[in-house]
Amino acid sequence: MNGAQLLCETLLANGIDVCFANPGTSEMHFVAALDQQPRMRCILGLYEGVVTGAADGYARMAGKPAATLLHLGSGLGNGVANLHNAQRARSPIVNIVGDHARHHLAFDAPLTSDIHAIASAVSAQVHTIASAEGLVPSILDGIATALQPPGQVSTLILPADVAWGEMGKDAQPAVRQAPAAAQVDDAAIARAAQALRAGHALLLLGGAALRGDALRRAHLIAQATGAQVLAETSNARMQRGRGAPRTDKLPYAVDAALQRLEDVDHLVLVGSRDPVAFFAYPGKPSRLAPEACAVCELASPHMDIDSALLRLMVALGVSDVQEIAATSKVPVPAATSQPLDADTLCRAIAALLPEDAIVTDESVTQGRTFFGHSHGSAAHDYLQLTGGAIGIGMPLAVGAAVACPQRQVVSLQADGSAMYTVQALWTQAREKLQCLTVIFSNRRYAILHHEMTNVGVERLGRNAQSMLSIGSPDIQWAELASSLGVASARASTPAAFLDAFRQGLAHDGPFLIEAVLPD
Amino acid sequence: MNGAQLLCETLLANGIDVCFANPGTSEMHFVAALDQQPRMRCILGLYEGVVTGAADGYARMAGKPAATLLHLGSGLGNGVANLHNAQRARSPIVNIVGDHARHHLAFDAPLTSDIHAIASAVSAQVHTIASAEGLVPSILDGIATALQPPGQVSTLILPADVAWGEMGKDAQPAVRQAPAAAQVDDAAIARAAQALRAGHALLLLGGAALRGDALRRAHLIAQATGAQVLAETSNARMQRGRGAPRTDKLPYAVDAALQRLEDVDHLVLVGSRDPVAFFAYPGKPSRLAPEACAVCELASPHMDIDSALLRLMVALGVSDVQEIAATSKVPVPAATSQPLDADTLCRAIAALLPEDAIVTDESVTQGRTFFGHSHGSAAHDYLQLTGGAIGIGMPLAVGAAVACPQRQVVSLQADGSAMYTVQALWTQAREKLQCLTVIFSNRRYAILHHEMTNVGVERLGRNAQSMLSIGSPDIQWAELASSLGVASARASTPAAFLDAFRQGLAHDGPFLIEAVLPD
Repeated sequence: MNGAQLLCETLLANGIDVCFANPGTSEMHFVAALDQQPRMRCILGLYEGVVTGAADGYARMAGKPAATLLHLGSGLGNGVANLHNAQRARSPIVNIVGDHARHHLAFDAPLTSDIHAIASAVSAQVHTIASAEGLVPSILDGIATALQPPGQVSTLILPADVAWGEMGKDAQPAVRQAPAAAQVDDAAIARAAQALRAGHALLLLGGAALRGDALRRAHLIAQATGAQVLAETSNARMQRGRGAPRTDKLPYAVDAALQRLEDVDHLVLVGSRDPVAFFAYPGKPSRLAPEACAVCELASPHMDIDSALLRLMVALGVSDVQEIAATSKVPVPAATSQPLDADTLCRAIAALLPEDAIVTDESVTQGRTFFGHSHGSAAHDYLQLTGGAIGIGMPLAVGAAVACPQRQVVSLQADGSAMYTVQALWTQAREKLQCLTVIFSNRRYAILHHEMTNVGVERLGRNAQSMLSIGSPDIQWAELASSLGVASARASTPAAFLDAFRQGLAHDGPFLIEAVLPD
Repeated sequence: MNGAQLLCETLLANGIDVCFANPGTSEMHFVAALDQQPRMRCILGLYEGVVTGAADGYARMAGKPAATLLHLGSGLGNGVANLHNAQRARSPIVNIVGDHARHHLAFDAPLTSDIHAIASAVSAQVHTIASAEGLVPSILDGIATALQPPGQVSTLILPADVAWGEMGKDAQPAVRQAPAAAQVDDAAIARAAQALRAGHALLLLGGAALRGDALRRAHLIAQATGAQVLAETSNARMQRGRGAPRTDKLPYAVDAALQRLEDVDHLVLVGSRDPVAFFAYPGKPSRLAPEACAVCELASPHMDIDSALLRLMVALGVSDVQEIAATSKVPVPAATSQPLDADTLCRAIAALLPEDAIVTDESVTQGRTFFGHSHGSAAHDYLQLTGGAIGIGMPLAVGAAVACPQRQVVSLQADGSAMYTVQALWTQAREKLQCLTVIFSNRRYAILHHEMTNVGVERLGRNAQSMLSIGSPDIQWAELASSLGVASARASTPAAFLDAFRQGLAHDGPFLIEAVLPD
């Protein structure tokens, strides 16, 4: 057995049986090892951003890590943006990066680079497998890092000579138990109870607080104490739609966020962080909570949030038998032949969303009303861009669909962001994934147009136009999807869109709708 | 004047008047500043790998740096692979990365990351502009780093608050003289002369030795002394075709390279490095020159190579009046209706190449015979993938076409590699660049198929097939190009290809030919 085979067996022994891959020459022994293991499902991305984004989507929905397979520092570099997002989503990923054989590094061959430096920026820990003897311990450490609750990106650097080197005859895979989430201490429960009793309190939910028992408990506590409930601005996964309590999000825009929080005296963090602005602006604060607001952490994201909320219910004497208000059903917009607009598009999707769908949302500005409309949609999971690095939407859909093959994935996708990892469409076609993509085609980086007015520019000149518009030429999304093997349609009216969306849901395999919006 | 405006003026004062850009919110003040400077040509890439690869192509052909504009660590990450290639090409680039306002960093907002760590892996130096006062000195240092002969990637990190901050009223741009290349010392000339007189010598050319007077001088020296001349395996820019002396390259494959060098007793490095294998293989050496071969450096890449070769001629008594053997014209292959094969494709391109073309070559395995066939092509510049990070071909074509708008760019592009930065086609269309792309479509990572046999795997199983084939679905390249605004044709016979190639040359603006090769 060589190192690559032992790595592969150790991954499988630890329940890691999906590998999103874009290999190169230095990983050929690992590819050969994977080839001998039909239990491992290998999924090719034609670009590494697809690989790492898919691993994130898989982790969010499967609740366990996939492995990646990347080629040296450059392949890792191509995957950096979505690893960044995965770190911010707290997704477990075992990120495997091949390296040159150790004796080859000193020769500074053309593809040699500082893998460790790049990986360190997007990993909780970077393990270089330094020897045959160190192989299994390094892998187990790497897996343990990935599994550290709620999840982390763990990078393993695999030198080619370790991969091809023969292991001793006693070498065998081992299993590492997933570490348990830490328990919240009694003092934190007591402080949170006191904050909630004091009034004008807000429970800010993040991570695991946004689904299942935890979400329900947070709302029960809020109902009983008169506190508000709010989710963080960007969330890895929210349980939404009918059957789930209605949970709004903290707005993205700084002024709106400040206004949303202005009456809060006690902010109780439940798997969330003290909220901060995405970006700094001259004269605006970075922290979003009022200066006078007391911040109290019930449970940090790595703790056992479910149990903390249960203990908080007990401390407050909140009963589990209350009803939570039902959300009302979303009406289907009229099938008119008017030009399609962003809000009608969002309402149409919210209305037609099938039961148990997974929504990946990278619709940025044009999809901004979808969240509000979809409180009453069919039950669904809702996955967002967590780290602000655009280009994760369609890869996220890939990973979610691989994790949940029985569920419909609906991928809400801004056109500008879609171009960053457009290669994901090919993987959707290759793997016949049930991904229905809606491209919100407005042919510009609308968020940046808005930011230009924020910096005082009213009329864009030639250079700004050339950097903030993505029209001229207009991207033909239906044709682009088709060229990559994905069936598609184009819709510029509500009637056409409703038809296309129903067609996409009925279609076996991926489908893309180019929704043409006004300039 | 704010910091962004001063940065922009300083770039212009130093002759940097092209900015390849993919900006984000934290760079809006810089975008506003660029908008006020019509002298700066801003070119949008819909993905950062396009931006950095284009900056490399521009530098190789313009002989001076462009600026880039990237958004935070994630945008930089997306550009890492082609910055790696640019470093290996020794291309001057002023790589500008926006960062959060300094006071915002402590809040660890979602897009915060360790920009310095990522940049350090692909930059000769990373300058963070730490204050308003430090702005101009930092920019000048950054430009000086980029201009350090023969050229380097120099990263400037621009915090948003420095960009929006008002400069003092005395603030003004300054100019930094480009550092001169170091002169070779007399001892190096004498050693090289001695090596060449000793016999069985080989002049290994790299960098600036591959064009103009330097290339001619190297060949005159070789003719006079009986030495061989060879180029490195991967070169940023070679002068080739009729009018240039015929210069072969050291083969990529380790065994072929070892064989090519086995009779060499004296290796004279002229702007090149002691050759090493791209990758390590069990039982094969990393260094490619024979153990017994003496290696002598005439001039390292950063030195004045032209003048070193002139002094070497004088030392050896070589006259400048000799003739260099002319290369013979390439015949056009027959316009048959047989299935197209890779070699016929290469011969056709070599035969039809127009005078003064720029060839960017990322054709990998399927284009391997082009180099041999094109010694006798019309005069052209030949640009290769230098750092092994695939996905530079089409961006390189963008940059070359921007630098040389009067010349035809012919982009030889493997299908697998093309997918990494396929967004470059859109920029070609937007900027109406004279780029004729030939996609060598064989629907697999052929180089990795070959490497699998190298590691002893004869028959690929399901997992290896899924990772090394890129068919199923087959990418429809003509349709893909058209969806991004690039006119296109599909050719599966020599007759169709010859027609399409002539059509592409006659076309005003970019054109893409999907050349369908056998599986």
